Amino acid sequence: MQEIRLASRPTGWPTADNFELAELPTPAPGPGQVLIRNRFMSVDPYMRGRMNDVESYVAPFEIGKALDGAAIGEVVASNAEQVPVGATVLHGLGWRDFAVADAAHVRVVDPAAAPTLSAYLGLLGMTGLTAYVGLLDIAQFRAGDVVFVSGAAGAVGSVVGQIARLRGAKRVIGSAGSAEKVRHLVDDLGFDAAFNYKDAPVRQQLRDAAPDGIDVYFDNVGGDHLEAAIGSLNKFGRVALCGAIAQYNETSAPATPRNLALAIGKELNLRGFIVGNHRDRMPEFVAEVGGWLRAGEIESRETVVEGLAAAPEAFLGLMRGENTGKMVVKLG
Amino acid sequence: MQEIRLASRPTGWPTADNFELAELPTPAPGPGQVLIRNRFMSVDPYMRGRMNDVESYVAPFEIGKALDGAAIGEVVASNAEQVPVGATVLHGLGWRDFAVADAAHVRVVDPAAAPTLSAYLGLLGMTGLTAYVGLLDIAQFRAGDVVFVSGAAGAVGSVVGQIARLRGAKRVIGSAGSAEKVRHLVDDLGFDAAFNYKDAPVRQQLRDAAPDGIDVYFDNVGGDHLEAAIGSLNKFGRVALCGAIAQYNETSAPATPRNLALAIGKELNLRGFIVGNHRDRMPEFVAEVGGWLRAGEIESRETVVEGLAAAPEAFLGLMRGENTGKMVVKLG
Repeated sequence: MQEIRLASRPTGWPTADNFELAELPTPAPGPGQVLIRNRFMSVDPYMRGRMNDVESYVAPFEIGKALDGAAIGEVVASNAEQVPVGATVLHGLGWRDFAVADAAHVRVVDPAAAPTLSAYLGLLGMTGLTAYVGLLDIAQFRAGDVVFVSGAAGAVGSVVGQIARLRGAKRVIGSAGSAEKVRHLVDDLGFDAAFNYKDAPVRQQLRDAAPDGIDVYFDNVGGDHLEAAIGSLNKFGRVALCGAIAQYNETSAPATPRNLALAIGKELNLRGFIVGNHRDRMPEFVAEVGGWLRAGEIESRETVVEGLAAAPEAFLGLMRGENTGKMVVKLG
Repeated sequence: MQEIRLASRPTGWPTADNFELAELPTPAPGPGQVLIRNRFMSVDPYMRGRMNDVESYVAPFEIGKALDGAAIGEVVASNAEQVPVGATVLHGLGWRDFAVADAAHVRVVDPAAAPTLSAYLGLLGMTGLTAYVGLLDIAQFRAGDVVFVSGAAGAVGSVVGQIARLRGAKRVIGSAGSAEKVRHLVDDLGFDAAFNYKDAPVRQQLRDAAPDGIDVYFDNVGGDHLEAAIGSLNKFGRVALCGAIAQYNETSAPATPRNLALAIGKELNLRGFIVGNHRDRMPEFVAEVGGWLRAGEIESRETVVEGLAAAPEAFLGLMRGENTGKMVVKLG
């Protein structure tokens, strides 16, 4: 089997040198364990934080050991009755082609219930749940709201915008980093407006796109995007603080938002969240989003990279914003 | 009668030149109106914002016209049965010694129910309600929380700290701007710890005072205080954004907090509020805080300035932090 290990901790932007591919004997499952042949693994922005030697809501990766993260695969050997050979399972041991996991730590899923196996890592997985919980529970979205989402062509942002549209937003606005992504948001995903944040200051482009202000901001970016959103938020506006990809690779803290004191008079509510503490919403999420997916009302674009050896490059591409929709690595 | 008018709009720190004292004939009350002889008027930090020509949650003051704000006085002439001569009334026409008000816009209070009339502007008025709503409803204080409040020797902050103590905080920490205020917080108001923010970086002093972190931050200051609090907040910490006095007189926006992205992993909730939208809490507030006051469990320190002509200087002193507790002007 092969696995990707953290060779060294990046300072600032990570590079290929921070990763190494290792080969080792495929292990046999112990009692109560299963051997999984991985089919897809996820690369996610939050993994950048785990490359730093900082205690956070998840433990840091360790140098010289395999990275981990969400993956889906097939059971090829089993010492656990409830997870037989042939079962398709979701689990947390990505960044390797074979994985031995405790049967209690995997979730058996129905491969026929999704358009592709990789959807369980994206639209129908924690990525989609992040969008759902952040928009509906954290930002308390209500029909009639004007919604702005940054990183809107990304895995989470693209789902946020579509849920807002399907749930009756007055107007959905997205920012992204290329003209092609902006076109995708408007033409394919049904955003009412979108802009390329590289074209002009976010503050100005957001004002043009939302002349009457916004009610909800779903933040995947931080920095200038958050400052612009605070400026455009209406009275009683709400912010879901989900990510801050603009600053994950910076070595000094950003000097934004400078206008946070506006939150007093506007009576804004800004709330950070981690999807892991909201797993109880999975059944409602799967029912509602799964229904939209079967009805063809929601699109699940993915950017697929082939082969475990390319996983570091997939992650680096994600950091640079090269993906549209969920970035996954196809294995085996 | 005399009144204080806005002579010009301040840029940065206000000065005495921004105010002018005017004399005019005492008006007679019209139908449904009362003439009030003011006894006390309030000066409050939010008034600084109204001196700018910016639409906010209250309209800006107008150049050449009297300022306004909370005041309490006695009715000396009345054309309204429900508000007779001799009644003590709370109303919004401060910054003058006599005021004509619609009877519908004044609130009759019992002067015997408070230790001094001025308490209706401070502990038992909107100032106390601000502390009560901000701590209990906005920051969702719970017994056992570690609470940090900035501007802790001020009108709102001193009440926040005492309510937190009386409601069962694990530890109450305050910041203030002089050694004497720090002593007052610990010796007179029962704070567990306090520090002078001018002595050393807030971040460092807060860490020393709360080595296990804080659960609630009540923000009256903004800037470096808010950044330090975000750094010290524990998982699921809550922030009531009430004021930002550190920046009201600055001409450029502060480059803090630089660490707002920590709110994601810590799942923090930051919420701005204006007390005016929470008047429905007045009955519970008066019952609970009034009870503490009668039992001698809460202290209501005031800084009293004498005479309408001194009102601008009282306001400027408030901006400079010269008050301990509520700053009021005694009239007549």
